Amino acid sequence: MTLFEKSEYLVRLERTKDRMEKAGLEVLIVTDPANMNYLTGYDAHTYYVEQAVIVALDADEPLWISRKMDVACARFTTWLSPENLLGWPEELVQSRLKHPMQFLTAAMQARGWGRKTIGIEMDAPHFTPRSYEVIKSGLPDAKFEDARLLVSWVRCLKSPAEIALMKKAGVIMEKVMQAAIDGINVGVRECDVVADVLHAQASGTDEYDGDYASFPPLICAGEKASAPHLTWTSDRFKNELSINLELAAAVKRYHCPLSRTIYLGKNPSKQLTDTAKWTVDGLNAELAAIKPGVTCEEVDQAFRKSIAHTGITKESRSGYSMGLGYPPDWGEHTCCMRPGDRTIIQPNMTFHIITGIWMDTWGFEISESLVVTETGCETLTHYPRQLIIKG
Amino acid sequence: MTLFEKSEYLVRLERTKDRMEKAGLEVLIVTDPANMNYLTGYDAHTYYVEQAVIVALDADEPLWISRKMDVACARFTTWLSPENLLGWPEELVQSRLKHPMQFLTAAMQARGWGRKTIGIEMDAPHFTPRSYEVIKSGLPDAKFEDARLLVSWVRCLKSPAEIALMKKAGVIMEKVMQAAIDGINVGVRECDVVADVLHAQASGTDEYDGDYASFPPLICAGEKASAPHLTWTSDRFKNELSINLELAAAVKRYHCPLSRTIYLGKNPSKQLTDTAKWTVDGLNAELAAIKPGVTCEEVDQAFRKSIAHTGITKESRSGYSMGLGYPPDWGEHTCCMRPGDRTIIQPNMTFHIITGIWMDTWGFEISESLVVTETGCETLTHYPRQLIIKG
Repeated sequence: MTLFEKSEYLVRLERTKDRMEKAGLEVLIVTDPANMNYLTGYDAHTYYVEQAVIVALDADEPLWISRKMDVACARFTTWLSPENLLGWPEELVQSRLKHPMQFLTAAMQARGWGRKTIGIEMDAPHFTPRSYEVIKSGLPDAKFEDARLLVSWVRCLKSPAEIALMKKAGVIMEKVMQAAIDGINVGVRECDVVADVLHAQASGTDEYDGDYASFPPLICAGEKASAPHLTWTSDRFKNELSINLELAAAVKRYHCPLSRTIYLGKNPSKQLTDTAKWTVDGLNAELAAIKPGVTCEEVDQAFRKSIAHTGITKESRSGYSMGLGYPPDWGEHTCCMRPGDRTIIQPNMTFHIITGIWMDTWGFEISESLVVTETGCETLTHYPRQLIIKG
Repeated sequence: MTLFEKSEYLVRLERTKDRMEKAGLEVLIVTDPANMNYLTGYDAHTYYVEQAVIVALDADEPLWISRKMDVACARFTTWLSPENLLGWPEELVQSRLKHPMQFLTAAMQARGWGRKTIGIEMDAPHFTPRSYEVIKSGLPDAKFEDARLLVSWVRCLKSPAEIALMKKAGVIMEKVMQAAIDGINVGVRECDVVADVLHAQASGTDEYDGDYASFPPLICAGEKASAPHLTWTSDRFKNELSINLELAAAVKRYHCPLSRTIYLGKNPSKQLTDTAKWTVDGLNAELAAIKPGVTCEEVDQAFRKSIAHTGITKESRSGYSMGLGYPPDWGEHTCCMRPGDRTIIQPNMTFHIITGIWMDTWGFEISESLVVTETGCETLTHYPRQLIIKG
C-alpha cells in the first residue's frame, strides 16, 4: 500500500518526464533515495547498496533496481508492477570482482535503452564515482548528461497531501522541542536530553507515528555552540550557559526542522540577548517578506537589511527548500535564501528559514519551517520565537 | 580533545602511508566520513556537504577541508594543527555556479600536489561523480588511481582502545534489545517500541553516553518480516506474530549491532521453531569456526554445512567486518563471510555475524557482534541466543 494515491505518483512522473523532454533526455537514472521515494513510494533503509529508479519516456512505469533481498521492501512500498522490480544477486553486495551497476546496465540494454540520451544525477547522495564509471562502461553507446536536481526541482512544489504530512511533522516538532527544553537542566547529561528528543521524534502523537530525522539531534552547549554540527556527549549542562538546539521531526520521511537557543541561568550576557533580539527581528522580517512572486534573494535581503544596523553578520544562507529526505540531509539542494538565487517563490513551496549566528566562541540560532501560501507563508510550528531563558 | 591519544592516530596514519607506498600513491583524498574520522578524529554531522581529508607522503599531518562554518567542529574533534584545517567559503554550499572541490584542488595545487599520483575513494559514501569530475579537472596534471577501501582495510584491525569502545557499545546493546523485547506487546504500536529503543541507544549507561546508530532501528512484524530493511509504522503488534529486530548500539561512532526474532503468542509454527533452532545451530557453528588463521569463506562454510541438512537456504553473506561508521552503514565493506572471500582472520578484527533467513512471507533473524581473540572469538553481547517467545 503506497503512502500517496497512485494518481499522485503519476503526476510526479509526468512532471519529471516534462522536464526530461525539455532537457533532451530520453532516460533518467534516479539514484537520490529521496527522488526514488518521490517517484515510486520506495522507502527502506537500503541506500548503502547500489540502487536506482529508471524513468524512460518510452515506459509507462519506472523501473526499480536494488538488491534482491530488498525487492520485498519495494513490494510493500511502491506502486510499481512486479515486472518493474528487479533485484540484483546477493553475491554482488560489496563484491571485489563484480558491481551491481553491471546488472543495471544489462537490464537497461535489455529494454532498448543502450543508445539513448541518459540523464544522471551527478551530485546525488549515495551515488559514487565508481557506480557512474560502471554505468558508462556498460552503456558505451549511450550519451550521458548531468541531470542533477531534475527531480529535486519537481519536489519543490508540494501537493496538499505532502503539506498535510509536513504539518503533522510540525505537530510532532513542538513536542520534540518541548522535550528538549524540559529536559535541559543544570547537571543533566546531553545524552539524556537527546534520548528524550529521539523518543518524542519516533512516538509521534496518538494519531500517527514519527519518523527518524535525516540529521541526528544537534545540541551544542557553551563553547560548542560555536560549532554548528557537533553531536552530543555525556557532558552535563552547567549554569549560566547557552545551548543551541537544531532539531527536527519527520513523518513518513517529510521533515519539519526547528532551531532554538536556550540559556540556562539568570544572567545572559547583553551580547547574547541583543543578538537574540536582532536575530528574531531579522527572522520576522524574512518571514514577512515571503510571498508568491518574490525571489529567494529578496527574502534573504529582508533579513540582512534588518540586521544591518546591529553589527552582527552572517555569511551563510538564511534558508533553503526542504521536505522529503534521507540521511544525511533534509534539504533539497535546490533554492536557497542567499544573494544570487533568483528562484521565484510559489505557493506550496516549503522552506527552512534558519538565521543562526555562529561566532568564534558562542552562537545563537533560531529557525522556522514553513509552507508558502497564496498571500504569504504559514509556519509549520508555533513555538515561542525567542531566546528561551530557563533560570 | 581527541577521542584517542595522538599516538594512536599517528599509528593509523603510518599504516595508511605504508599502504599508499605499496600502491604507488603519493597523495590520498579520503572522503568516506568514517575514514576521515579514523585518521583525524573528525566527528560531526557535515557529510551532506563536500569534504575530505588529504594524506600526502610528504606531509606530516593530514589536511582537513570542509565548509568554513565547520572548521570549529574540526577544532573540537581533531588532532590537527590550525593550519591544516581549511574551510571553503559559505557561498559554495550547494552553489549552482561553483563547487567546493575547486577550493580543494586549489589548496592541493598550493601544496605542490598537482602533479602527484593521487588515490581516490571511488566508492566512498557521500562522494559523488560530480565531486570526482571537479577534482580531475582541477588537477589536470595529476594521475588518479582508485584507492577505495585502502583506509577501510587499515580499520579492519582494531586497537585495544577501539575494542574497549565496542565493548561499551555491547553493554548498551543489551539494554537496547531488552527495551525492544520489553516494549513489544499485543496492541502496542511499532513506533512506541522504536521510541524506547532510540532512548536506550542515546542514554547509554550511567558511565557513558550512547551514540546514534548508522541504521535506524529495523522492527519488521508479520509479513513485513520478509522485507529486511523496512522502517517502522504505527501498526500495532498482533498476537501469534513473529517480529524481526535488527538493532544496534554505538559509542563514539563504534557499533555493536544485534538481531533477534521475537514471537508474540503461544503457538509459533513448527516451521518457525525449526528454522530458529537450525539457524541458531548454524550461528553457533559459525562462531566456533572463527579463529586467527582461517579464512572468511571457511567461517561462512561452517554455517552453510550446519544448515545443509535442513532444507533452508541463504543466498546472502553470513557476516561482515564492522565498527566505526556513519549513516547509512556500520559495515566496513572489506571482508565478508561468503564464498570466495579468502581474507585471513586475525586477532582484533571485529565482525557482525548475521544469519538471517528471509522467506517470501516471513523471516527469522539472529546475529552476534564479536571481536576475534588469540584463540577464537568473544561476542560483544551476552543476550539469549534463541527465538524469543513472549506468550
